Amino acid sequence: MTSYNFFCPTRVIFGCGALNRMHEHKLPGKKALLVISNGKSTIVSGSLDRTREQLRLAGCEAVVFNGIGANPLKEMVEDGARAAKSNGCDFVVALGGGSVMDAAKNIAMLATQPSEDLWDYAFGETGKGLPLVNEPLPWVAITTSAGTGSEVDEAGVITKTDTHEKIGVGGYDSMFATLAIVDPELMVTVPPKFTAYQGFDALCHSLEGYISCRHSLMSDMVERSAIEKIGKYLARAVKDGNDIEAREAVAFANTMSGYSMLCVACSSEHSMEHAMSAYHPELPHGAGLIMLSKAYFQFWIDKHVCDERFIDMARFLGMNDADKPQDFITALVKLQEECGVADLKMSDFGIRKEECMTLAKNARATMGVLFAFDPAETTDEEIAGIFEKAYR
Amino acid sequence: MTSYNFFCPTRVIFGCGALNRMHEHKLPGKKALLVISNGKSTIVSGSLDRTREQLRLAGCEAVVFNGIGANPLKEMVEDGARAAKSNGCDFVVALGGGSVMDAAKNIAMLATQPSEDLWDYAFGETGKGLPLVNEPLPWVAITTSAGTGSEVDEAGVITKTDTHEKIGVGGYDSMFATLAIVDPELMVTVPPKFTAYQGFDALCHSLEGYISCRHSLMSDMVERSAIEKIGKYLARAVKDGNDIEAREAVAFANTMSGYSMLCVACSSEHSMEHAMSAYHPELPHGAGLIMLSKAYFQFWIDKHVCDERFIDMARFLGMNDADKPQDFITALVKLQEECGVADLKMSDFGIRKEECMTLAKNARATMGVLFAFDPAETTDEEIAGIFEKAYR
Repeated sequence: MTSYNFFCPTRVIFGCGALNRMHEHKLPGKKALLVISNGKSTIVSGSLDRTREQLRLAGCEAVVFNGIGANPLKEMVEDGARAAKSNGCDFVVALGGGSVMDAAKNIAMLATQPSEDLWDYAFGETGKGLPLVNEPLPWVAITTSAGTGSEVDEAGVITKTDTHEKIGVGGYDSMFATLAIVDPELMVTVPPKFTAYQGFDALCHSLEGYISCRHSLMSDMVERSAIEKIGKYLARAVKDGNDIEAREAVAFANTMSGYSMLCVACSSEHSMEHAMSAYHPELPHGAGLIMLSKAYFQFWIDKHVCDERFIDMARFLGMNDADKPQDFITALVKLQEECGVADLKMSDFGIRKEECMTLAKNARATMGVLFAFDPAETTDEEIAGIFEKAYR
Repeated sequence: MTSYNFFCPTRVIFGCGALNRMHEHKLPGKKALLVISNGKSTIVSGSLDRTREQLRLAGCEAVVFNGIGANPLKEMVEDGARAAKSNGCDFVVALGGGSVMDAAKNIAMLATQPSEDLWDYAFGETGKGLPLVNEPLPWVAITTSAGTGSEVDEAGVITKTDTHEKIGVGGYDSMFATLAIVDPELMVTVPPKFTAYQGFDALCHSLEGYISCRHSLMSDMVERSAIEKIGKYLARAVKDGNDIEAREAVAFANTMSGYSMLCVACSSEHSMEHAMSAYHPELPHGAGLIMLSKAYFQFWIDKHVCDERFIDMARFLGMNDADKPQDFITALVKLQEECGVADLKMSDFGIRKEECMTLAKNARATMGVLFAFDPAETTDEEIAGIFEKAYR
């Protein structure tokens, strides 16, 4: 398959020092809701002060909203939207990782809608899926991690706790960031463990896209580049956070994996992981993917639905002499070992083996749409079987 | 170097049959100036009727403007802008190759400005460079050739005959196409010779970008993909115009080469060729590039300013065991031979050897900006020397 649609109106400013040049670009408003996490990282690293200074240089006011946690909740987005409204903000700036950006783009959307309930505009099992009434506020992404590619897409993963839904919300053309600052220097303070988790998230976006039944010339290109860069540089970034060449390569791979999702989508592996963290919100998304990935891709290798694609991916990961699909698993596990994440166990995150079918059913019920991008159809039993094989 | 800025708000619909789906996409107006060439190709191929039908299905009127020739002239753009105004068109649709698209985006721009003189908004040696007063009309690109990448950029090459200027005009964010239909089926009727000329234009965009001093992770990615695809498929498309797999690959390479120009730019080779066709308007742009390219790239190889990049490019062209810069020239000439264009002679197009210094000076005077993207600085004598070496 070669056909694709590609649309990404976000202006990407990539490179070391990009944050220092933010004020030179036209910003889409005069008063920003500056969304950060509820942790301390942007304060300690100085990136919050630097962002405020950039906004000041651009002639913009800023109101800080620090209410976003990992795997952001519906209520956090709703609080943020109220803050934007009550402060009269006319744009949103996200300074953070995927959680902050995913929340911020939904804050920007919700802030201009008549309802204050995000789920009125969500789909999934329980969302009302109402159309947007007003244009969302424009938003600017300043990404401080390399994992989700959220700076170049138009949806955000949000959790509704009571219904165990962790799903993509948004997806409208008007929800792309106006400007995305991807400055690898902002990523040097990410701890090794999270560097690995996030890097494997980006990697899985591209691996899933590459074996998708809907792959195209465009998705193949960005995914090959992402897989190659992560294969070559992720372990270096994990081992030495200040290895700026490695940080640059992984940051680039992440943005390319974001583009990948614009032409293909993630596949059921992502639905499966979102089910895990919907039930276990303390589980980092990337860690969940790492724990699933060997069994997940082995499942497809055993089906022999895309043998050549696995050989390609093994080569992209650096195994130049790969000549059989199984080589991909060897290369994947080697990268996990080099990044110190080969021994993650679901049991360490409170997941019980009895949950496997519940998770399988939740994955399809809440994010069933991604299953359409898989190399072939699956049953709930097969998905539960992958969970079981992955379980330790 | 890794830093880059990338901005392309054009929605690309790529693939066989994409034209048939055009009406499913939101078009940016109700009455189109449908710009085609002054030849017969879109009439004979049926693509004009098909485009009209798509516009009808989308609920749009269309007025055909067939006044665009190869290497389009300033006056053609001005005529088109008057036609758009007098017919009350609120958007422009370009159905054609690079010349038509380059003209159409400038028609769309000029149609809303107070002056009817395109050179009031051009730069170069004699343009007034006035700021745009009004938003240009939106435009839609339907590309029927794979050469210029004009469907995804915001400037068009226009010739002012009396001053021998063939330069890029436009370059504003508001001049990107809203929608680009890249349907390889529309390209099957391009004759072998022009398939080769256009393919080498796309190739040169990527080759020039890859050796540029301003290359980046993003430009490297799209250029590698473009060079690989052209190396593998261009000769096939030349030999059998109905080889749809080859047409798809070359069409994709062309759009990627268009992206390349958004992150880097062409280099002085393009300035040099534009000088040639500014003085000899009957010279197809791609043919000029082919006649220059061996001497041009040999010049940089001999300077040893980017040896590794030439080895990379030789490999991208399919020479997997390349290990020295000169291998690139071998691969380039082999591709020219396979495409039947290795024997083009400047003398056959009326160019005289005595013109070399005139052309060198014109290249720098009219499109000097591209020299800043070269691997190193050059003198007029060096550029004239490349013309002389290329002369046959």
